[in-house]
Amino acid sequence: MARINEHYAKLPASYLFPEIGRRVRAYQAEHPDAKVIRLGIGDVTEPLAPAIVAAMHAAVDEMGKRETFRGYGPEQGYDFLVDAIRKADYASRGVEIAADEIFVSDGSKCDSSNIQEIFALAARVAVTDPVYPVYVDSNVMAGRTGPSGADGRYPGLVYLVGNEANGFQPEPPAEAVDVVYLCSPNNPTGTVATRAQLERWVAWARKHDAVILFDAAYESYISDPALPRSIYEIEGAKECAIELRSFSKRAGFTGVRCAFIVVPKTVTGTDPAGKRVSLNALWARRHTTKFNGASYVVQRGAAAAYSPEGLAQTQQQIAFYMENARLLREGLTAAGFTIFGGTHAPYLWLRTANGASSWEFFDRLLNESQIVGTPGAGFGPAGEGYFRLSAFNSRANIEEAIGRIRRAFR
Amino acid sequence: MARINEHYAKLPASYLFPEIGRRVRAYQAEHPDAKVIRLGIGDVTEPLAPAIVAAMHAAVDEMGKRETFRGYGPEQGYDFLVDAIRKADYASRGVEIAADEIFVSDGSKCDSSNIQEIFALAARVAVTDPVYPVYVDSNVMAGRTGPSGADGRYPGLVYLVGNEANGFQPEPPAEAVDVVYLCSPNNPTGTVATRAQLERWVAWARKHDAVILFDAAYESYISDPALPRSIYEIEGAKECAIELRSFSKRAGFTGVRCAFIVVPKTVTGTDPAGKRVSLNALWARRHTTKFNGASYVVQRGAAAAYSPEGLAQTQQQIAFYMENARLLREGLTAAGFTIFGGTHAPYLWLRTANGASSWEFFDRLLNESQIVGTPGAGFGPAGEGYFRLSAFNSRANIEEAIGRIRRAFR
Repeated sequence: MARINEHYAKLPASYLFPEIGRRVRAYQAEHPDAKVIRLGIGDVTEPLAPAIVAAMHAAVDEMGKRETFRGYGPEQGYDFLVDAIRKADYASRGVEIAADEIFVSDGSKCDSSNIQEIFALAARVAVTDPVYPVYVDSNVMAGRTGPSGADGRYPGLVYLVGNEANGFQPEPPAEAVDVVYLCSPNNPTGTVATRAQLERWVAWARKHDAVILFDAAYESYISDPALPRSIYEIEGAKECAIELRSFSKRAGFTGVRCAFIVVPKTVTGTDPAGKRVSLNALWARRHTTKFNGASYVVQRGAAAAYSPEGLAQTQQQIAFYMENARLLREGLTAAGFTIFGGTHAPYLWLRTANGASSWEFFDRLLNESQIVGTPGAGFGPAGEGYFRLSAFNSRANIEEAIGRIRRAFR
Repeated sequence: MARINEHYAKLPASYLFPEIGRRVRAYQAEHPDAKVIRLGIGDVTEPLAPAIVAAMHAAVDEMGKRETFRGYGPEQGYDFLVDAIRKADYASRGVEIAADEIFVSDGSKCDSSNIQEIFALAARVAVTDPVYPVYVDSNVMAGRTGPSGADGRYPGLVYLVGNEANGFQPEPPAEAVDVVYLCSPNNPTGTVATRAQLERWVAWARKHDAVILFDAAYESYISDPALPRSIYEIEGAKECAIELRSFSKRAGFTGVRCAFIVVPKTVTGTDPAGKRVSLNALWARRHTTKFNGASYVVQRGAAAAYSPEGLAQTQQQIAFYMENARLLREGLTAAGFTIFGGTHAPYLWLRTANGASSWEFFDRLLNESQIVGTPGAGFGPAGEGYFRLSAFNSRANIEEAIGRIRRAFR
């Protein structure tokens, strides 16, 4: 008989976004004329930048000619993209990253769910709460936890609570863990870690010999030049941190698919005999054995995001979304809401009105304002009583949404 | 301290293809004028078909306009591609596969290394020998084996030996296993399973309640219409088999990246309480949690391979490679070699000359004929004494290679 992975059964039957979809479909079936505005899932709406479109066309043409056709590429990514990343994202900010410390992939969701594989099954893993569900679910599926408790938490994971008192940026835990997932600018809370906060994390990781998995998928949305955009801007981080980056939100690649992960050769783990092992070597093994490189056409598109034109065009898109975020923040504050995030991230995290639960607020916003957001409780117990709105939409829809919310909640 | 996955250390330090690359580079450094012909790695050489190029251009244009831009797509793949697969690959051969039994991905290497995740760590896994290394390595990395023995085999795996006596198509094992990987047309041996052989496999799987992971990445190279191209052409296979397909070799997508996996809802495994669980539900969970859909532009390209023009153009490419295979097979037979495969697959599997080891023959072919192939021993102990040549190259290079081999080995 074929014995199955029993750990999958520990996951909740209904995932957050399908449940949202179900409720929206039910509402629309009853109100076919309602114009629903979606500020739920964090998906971009602006088209690809012209420089990226041009680069992808050129790459498609190359693939159509024998002399320039490309078959299997290097699993770690083409030099033209790796070099652009190394220079523009790191060297320009004083961080030296070697080419073989960068691994191009088809998406951060894959990277952030696959990275746990290089750690022991017994590794103790810490996550923040609220949290991007993929960090948790991938560890549950790997068998690092027990079944979830009544509070929705998994025994075996260490939860670090983000709340208003700590600005949704929890401090390092007192206890030792092997691995911690951090996300800044944060999904879902839209808050960002300061240099001082990251310095405390790096000091903690080095003291406890822990590894930080730093998800910087939203770093392009940081508007204050004093804030670190990479954890490697912190002294000592190259000894303890792996960084994840994505083109999804910085270049509109959610449907194009490209991301990368940085694993410095100086980050080590420990094998059962107590020997130090380079995590770069482990990830290189994982990446080359189980992945066959990102699409050539896609990598050419990603590289174009670093060209002067591509950079200017994508920065304009980011500025557009961040103006949406500013309007939402100001409009909702004026409507009486307490808002977090939305200054260095395309997400706003708001306290629900009148102490409503996240899902009560979801239903009220859908029914009264025809607006879809994401219940904070979907990101963990500490998200209860909060709600995520995304700034990815047209200006007209954002303005319409603000007007509707102000009318409904004045 | 960060405890690492100790099982990675069980893998051999040097993987097959990097070692080949090392020896070729060393040879070329000493013989800078030598014109080396590469028949080693199984990578296509013909450019993308015009219909595919046109479809990808159109998709890039769509992504560049607000009205037609696409963000996150359905994780399982777009309907236009899933429907094309369902109709052209299955319904046309009398096999009913539902849309939600098909999962589009970015490559068969990912699918074939990820599929083991849905089975228990204790699951007993069988592979053929010789074998595509990814099946073995992904199970080693997951911790299903002990350290490899002196013969290069991993305790914990069941090896089914392919040899000349069984035409490199081993019969089902007497013992019970949970899961078996089959590949037909076979990589590396180029041999193909007959209907009768697949019927014995399906009967065996149903008797032992085992699951067959059927890798049909090379099905487009089957030239005999009587041979099954899908395992689902065998009665009862939808109760016991998962099938993997790829656009890499059928449409020249090794650098474009698209594949799919079929998990019928009727294939079940067993949980620790003895309850039947649908593998389709498990894989859907894995796919949606850890993957974010294949690139839209790529999926449009893959769908174009099913259009009348795309089909005609890609079939012409396959015919071109298969004519290469025929020339190689006849030329090498005339040179005195014993050849297997190459009739329904782009690979030839040849017995080395004069009982040389696989690597001795590799060195001799490189030094005397400036031809790179793949040592059979790289695919497992039973590959020792054999050698794989790929038919992916220009006609001129194939003819040149045949001439060189005939001169060196006459």
